[in-house]
Amino acid sequence: MAELQKGLEGVIAAETKVSSIIDSQLTYAGYDIDDLAENAEFEEIIYLLWHYKLPNKQELKELKEKLHEYMPLNDSVYNHFKEYAADHVHPMTALRTSVSYIAHFDPDAEDEGKDKKFERAIRIQAKIASLVTAFARVREGKDPVMPNKDLSYAGNFLYMLRGEMPTDIEVEAFNKALVLHADHELNASAFTARCAVSSLSDMYSGIVAAVGSLKGPLHGGANERVMNMLSDVKTVDAVDDYIDEKIKNKEKIMGFGHRVYKDGDPRAKYLKEMSKKITEETGQSQLFDISVKIADKMHEEKGLIPNVDFYSATVYHSLKISHDLFTPIFAVSRTSGWIAHMLEQYRDNRIIRPRAQYIGETNRTYLPIEERD
Amino acid sequence: MAELQKGLEGVIAAETKVSSIIDSQLTYAGYDIDDLAENAEFEEIIYLLWHYKLPNKQELKELKEKLHEYMPLNDSVYNHFKEYAADHVHPMTALRTSVSYIAHFDPDAEDEGKDKKFERAIRIQAKIASLVTAFARVREGKDPVMPNKDLSYAGNFLYMLRGEMPTDIEVEAFNKALVLHADHELNASAFTARCAVSSLSDMYSGIVAAVGSLKGPLHGGANERVMNMLSDVKTVDAVDDYIDEKIKNKEKIMGFGHRVYKDGDPRAKYLKEMSKKITEETGQSQLFDISVKIADKMHEEKGLIPNVDFYSATVYHSLKISHDLFTPIFAVSRTSGWIAHMLEQYRDNRIIRPRAQYIGETNRTYLPIEERD
Repeated sequence: MAELQKGLEGVIAAETKVSSIIDSQLTYAGYDIDDLAENAEFEEIIYLLWHYKLPNKQELKELKEKLHEYMPLNDSVYNHFKEYAADHVHPMTALRTSVSYIAHFDPDAEDEGKDKKFERAIRIQAKIASLVTAFARVREGKDPVMPNKDLSYAGNFLYMLRGEMPTDIEVEAFNKALVLHADHELNASAFTARCAVSSLSDMYSGIVAAVGSLKGPLHGGANERVMNMLSDVKTVDAVDDYIDEKIKNKEKIMGFGHRVYKDGDPRAKYLKEMSKKITEETGQSQLFDISVKIADKMHEEKGLIPNVDFYSATVYHSLKISHDLFTPIFAVSRTSGWIAHMLEQYRDNRIIRPRAQYIGETNRTYLPIEERD
Repeated sequence: MAELQKGLEGVIAAETKVSSIIDSQLTYAGYDIDDLAENAEFEEIIYLLWHYKLPNKQELKELKEKLHEYMPLNDSVYNHFKEYAADHVHPMTALRTSVSYIAHFDPDAEDEGKDKKFERAIRIQAKIASLVTAFARVREGKDPVMPNKDLSYAGNFLYMLRGEMPTDIEVEAFNKALVLHADHELNASAFTARCAVSSLSDMYSGIVAAVGSLKGPLHGGANERVMNMLSDVKTVDAVDDYIDEKIKNKEKIMGFGHRVYKDGDPRAKYLKEMSKKITEETGQSQLFDISVKIADKMHEEKGLIPNVDFYSATVYHSLKISHDLFTPIFAVSRTSGWIAHMLEQYRDNRIIRPRAQYIGETNRTYLPIEERD
């Protein structure tokens, strides 16, 4: 019998054209992440991940129009959000329930045609931004904000969340964060989505499964916890004692290290740059300084380098985003990658059904209940 | 680099004490499925899968009391079901959304303590029966039926679904179906659940992911399609032409073959027996005769043997259960196995994160949009 592959480490579970991580270089469809982070709009990335090519002018225009068209939600969703809010659910739980719920209103939710798949993909990508922003507003007793045709996806997210026009630098920072989080090869949530739809289940089922996976503290839950740490630490001078204490108690420090990147996460440098820029802009340089000090200390003590979650925390915080929305924002961006992986799974499907090694008792016989211990 | 393992066929992804399939023998925690199918109540199976031992009298009593206590749902769920029904959603879609929704009312939904995990497991196992039966009633304009303390899990399911006391033979048949579907090693939905919670996400996220996976036609969706086929065929004499036509058109015939069982599915014989018994009892022997004829024909033409989905279709139909509830019933039973697998994943977790082989273009450079094709 084959050997146990715990966590499937090193197992090649699929072929892909979506993204690759080779020698610590991350590419989306063959474009280096540096090139894309510097130049691309998130909508171009969506198109790239789904079609393996950057869109031309007409293609980008059509995609943007459709995203805008699909952003508004059914009134029933807003009504449900009031109930969810009254129950104080975490925004990731609300997202998990509501992204399943919006399938109820999609007449093509189960349609297997190829054109229908792309249409559904755009619909989901559009609505996920609205689900996160509308829930965030409704739980504060505010009305949802409808998208603005003149804004990009990144701009609209901030606009629908805060109800005021974002500045250029805010849109730039948020766009970059969306670009950097869009895909990451067979990460746990993308693989969960592929598993879910390998039974030829529908795309909503895959997204719901992926949201459930991303929610966990070992995956998307990390950046919210980074921010909690920064809030706990409060000053640069407090960093040393804080980290020493954590290390002594063998507590995990979030935002460092990655199974796949041994030489550092290529996405972190952009988020560090944006974090510096936007904390300065918003008069919160202190937070950036604490982050750098923590990163230095972690490198010194444990040889670990920040990953994508570490500096995204201060970027989002500076954009006046509630900390419990950090993971939902990760989901909004990663939806583009999840969909790309599902499209590949559908195109060349084989049900994902590994085996287990049985290590329990054998040859037992059913005894009447009176004779049991 | 390692080789592609498409569908992870033959890859050992976990160690387990829940169930095993070796040389076409299925065991739950070391008990042969034949022994359990003949003797055990579904509640004993729930306990067995979660604790690797059959319950003694006191343990079984406590489990039954808690299952009964947790069965009723929050009023908000019944209200939502009215809306879902008005939108004509499939019961599996309704189940996916509502099983995520009930987490909103669980104060311990995210609690990681071991005792809390078992409590939450019982809560989910109890409520999933109510979700399926209440939705089925609400969509027909009927009120939900509360569980009856004197009935077993199988009996209560039928009672809550139909609002009348089931007969002994009905309970026996349904209990056997629940026992036979409870677990099946690393099947696609159990593996999806393990993937989802390997980020240390909560148990509801795992169940939601698994429901999404089971929904697909290559997995739990098969038994509903078997029944559709039986309804299409109508008479024994029509079987030959029907199957010949399907084979000619290369259409998949549901309910046959299995990747893991090459010599036949050990669960099928009990369902065949129950199918014979209960179709006779309810004056629908014709359906059983058609089934047998289809099975014979498939064996003759393709060398294929019925799997668990094939005869469960007629059993459920004879119990006056709507065809679109067959897969949700599969989910009700398999929830016990999904939970067992998640409990194991939590106990010895490593995030499930395989790799992909990149086969797309490389070394591309971002071009301004005007210069793109």
